[in-house]
Amino acid sequence: MIVGAGFGGLSAAKALGRAPVEVLVIDRHNYHLFQPLLYQVATAALSPADIAAPIRSVLRHQANTSVMLAKVTGVDTVRQEVVLGARRVPFDFLVLATGARHAYFGHDGWELHAHGIKKIDDATFLRRKILLAFERAESESDPSERRRLLTFVVIGGGATGVEMAGAIAELARKALAADFRTIDPRSARVTLIEAGPRLLPAFDELLSEKAKRSLEKLGVEVLVNAMVTGCDASAVSLGAARIETRTIVWGAGVRASAAGKWLGVETDRVGRVKVAPDLSVPGHSNVFVIGDTAHALDRKGQPLPGIAPAAKQQGAYVARAIVARLAGESPAPFHYRDFGSLATIGRRSAVVQLGRVHLSGYLAWWLWGLAHICFLIGFRNRLAVAMNWAWNYVSFQRGTRLITGSDPETDAAASSAAPAALLRESA
Amino acid sequence: MIVGAGFGGLSAAKALGRAPVEVLVIDRHNYHLFQPLLYQVATAALSPADIAAPIRSVLRHQANTSVMLAKVTGVDTVRQEVVLGARRVPFDFLVLATGARHAYFGHDGWELHAHGIKKIDDATFLRRKILLAFERAESESDPSERRRLLTFVVIGGGATGVEMAGAIAELARKALAADFRTIDPRSARVTLIEAGPRLLPAFDELLSEKAKRSLEKLGVEVLVNAMVTGCDASAVSLGAARIETRTIVWGAGVRASAAGKWLGVETDRVGRVKVAPDLSVPGHSNVFVIGDTAHALDRKGQPLPGIAPAAKQQGAYVARAIVARLAGESPAPFHYRDFGSLATIGRRSAVVQLGRVHLSGYLAWWLWGLAHICFLIGFRNRLAVAMNWAWNYVSFQRGTRLITGSDPETDAAASSAAPAALLRESA
Repeated sequence: MIVGAGFGGLSAAKALGRAPVEVLVIDRHNYHLFQPLLYQVATAALSPADIAAPIRSVLRHQANTSVMLAKVTGVDTVRQEVVLGARRVPFDFLVLATGARHAYFGHDGWELHAHGIKKIDDATFLRRKILLAFERAESESDPSERRRLLTFVVIGGGATGVEMAGAIAELARKALAADFRTIDPRSARVTLIEAGPRLLPAFDELLSEKAKRSLEKLGVEVLVNAMVTGCDASAVSLGAARIETRTIVWGAGVRASAAGKWLGVETDRVGRVKVAPDLSVPGHSNVFVIGDTAHALDRKGQPLPGIAPAAKQQGAYVARAIVARLAGESPAPFHYRDFGSLATIGRRSAVVQLGRVHLSGYLAWWLWGLAHICFLIGFRNRLAVAMNWAWNYVSFQRGTRLITGSDPETDAAASSAAPAALLRESA
Repeated sequence: MIVGAGFGGLSAAKALGRAPVEVLVIDRHNYHLFQPLLYQVATAALSPADIAAPIRSVLRHQANTSVMLAKVTGVDTVRQEVVLGARRVPFDFLVLATGARHAYFGHDGWELHAHGIKKIDDATFLRRKILLAFERAESESDPSERRRLLTFVVIGGGATGVEMAGAIAELARKALAADFRTIDPRSARVTLIEAGPRLLPAFDELLSEKAKRSLEKLGVEVLVNAMVTGCDASAVSLGAARIETRTIVWGAGVRASAAGKWLGVETDRVGRVKVAPDLSVPGHSNVFVIGDTAHALDRKGQPLPGIAPAAKQQGAYVARAIVARLAGESPAPFHYRDFGSLATIGRRSAVVQLGRVHLSGYLAWWLWGLAHICFLIGFRNRLAVAMNWAWNYVSFQRGTRLITGSDPETDAAASSAAPAALLRESA
């Protein structure tokens, strides 16, 4: 049984497709989501469906595999069952690949104001929030409120924060530039805040510096060594300093899913389960934890990064380990192969680090784009993303500028939703 | 001032682009929606962004035109102002093009169970509902509940109902066919109910008959002369007979927007404003009502149909009428030119009636597709829809099979949403 059809879970399910086992994949969504491009949904470049593939379709040709849409609420390790609310499903081997959510380091109140991007609903929520800020600024008469609406703060200088800040800046400078009459969207202020000394700490220092310069060229204000001390409805606080804003994007930290709690085992500071070298859970040798929910160590004793390639390798490894165990063999420990890191900053600009090869600029941007299209699941999604990118590139426009859904703030400010829609979503 | 950027309002705004006037377009959404393809969003063939274009982008090159995202709550004809909640905006000429919503002929309670498709939120809601019915059936052990979940009832035999019934049948018979293990989606029952004696009353009788036969070939059960007497959470009632179902689609009737109430003028049975031959409101010569909100008469004294071509012609006419009035001339009355009707039934099947030319089958289907791509706004949307259709055609798949958003039914049954998402949408 595999819980979670993200990069780790899906990779495990695929690797078990021809094994002499029955596979059940449980996820609370009906789709696998390509999270690395979610920021492009949030900034109106792609549609949700372009980066999501129905799990059933992906696995339809595996006769030994079933898919269940359900929400796991616990694991009973004694009876070897997964708990789904009132129902229970037994397992022989269990792979938990339940991912992570954004976390606020103990400042849970910040969640109301600083929005992370882990799920489709997060991305469409942020898209609405960002586009509405421009709409509200257009009809706002108070200059200081207009300024606040046209200020966007991104917290966290990792790949998510860098890509998000670059994408918001491009949205304002290019796609929206000619569309308003009262405001000039190009005057929007985009600030990226990083607590550490440099952006993209996973990259070489030179590439960090290049990323910073590229962002600044796009008009993003980059603050490093800056510690956020507060987020509220109208500002981000950095000690005594305040940046007044109505839109805060959170890319600063994540917390693992509840898998550790379900199992009642030891976790690290961010809730990841400390796994054995074969990714099994100490004391529960038939239960594996992989991906963002696992605290696994590399050869140097460092925890593996929470990125897609690590999760995919772990998924494939666990499938092999299960097959080995069934054959009475004991699997060799898992070893992560680091193929490198990529992050894009904007039009024609990215940084790429593949072993000793360090690239930035135009070539890096092409590599980034090709890699992402190549790793998408399904021909249709590859085609759709390639088409959208080509169109965005040629036209400088964004194709999915829709304000959908509703929230009270929206209704009060600009009324983008009818009562019936509200009723339907919240009833 | 133009309220509503549907087919009518947008056509008026474009026609005034070079006129010696200032134009303000107000809509409560930031996009123009191509409603005729909304049923394809509801049946997972297209993404919302494929059939929506940002109003600002469409009108960006008209220097005399501004766009405002806001919800109109009334019209003050004495002070010549449009009321937006606490704010007011003055006008010299006013064009109300505020459309229609589905209506239940006095059975307002049916709305909870029978879902119409007029907005993007309606379509994604129905998509979730339809896809979830299959998911829930897959893990349902009670055979009669499974039957109920795999029964889909569409009420109303006009274009919306016919297209929706055909699309659901194809989804079940083709796209989902191989994806489940417990149920066979091909066994789904799709029933189309029409109160009148035949489907597509706007078409010739022979074409109605052909549409019926095409639907039946797809496995849709067509009931004509069947009057719905009740809709509840588990069935549609036809007098003493009950069709047990968990999914009811409403395509049987609409009611005009509140424009008539705002003006305090005479409306017809479905709330449409009875307009003068120049589409102005009797007693308010500088206020025009067009599209689905207007009760305008054709040469034979029959009310015009609530379809896109009528609204577009009215929008263009009103723009000319306003320019004529400003030049001190009095405009000739509006005359609707009926270019024909089109409706698609499914893969390779449609009916087309263009004057004396009546077509059905493959050729009609091509014509239908070309016409719809041609009338979409923006190169990007044409490309996206064409690409999606080509892919759907070749692969028999549907590209946007996402269950997004959340409702309590979903959460209880299959838990597709986390508490955080719920909180965010309904807080």
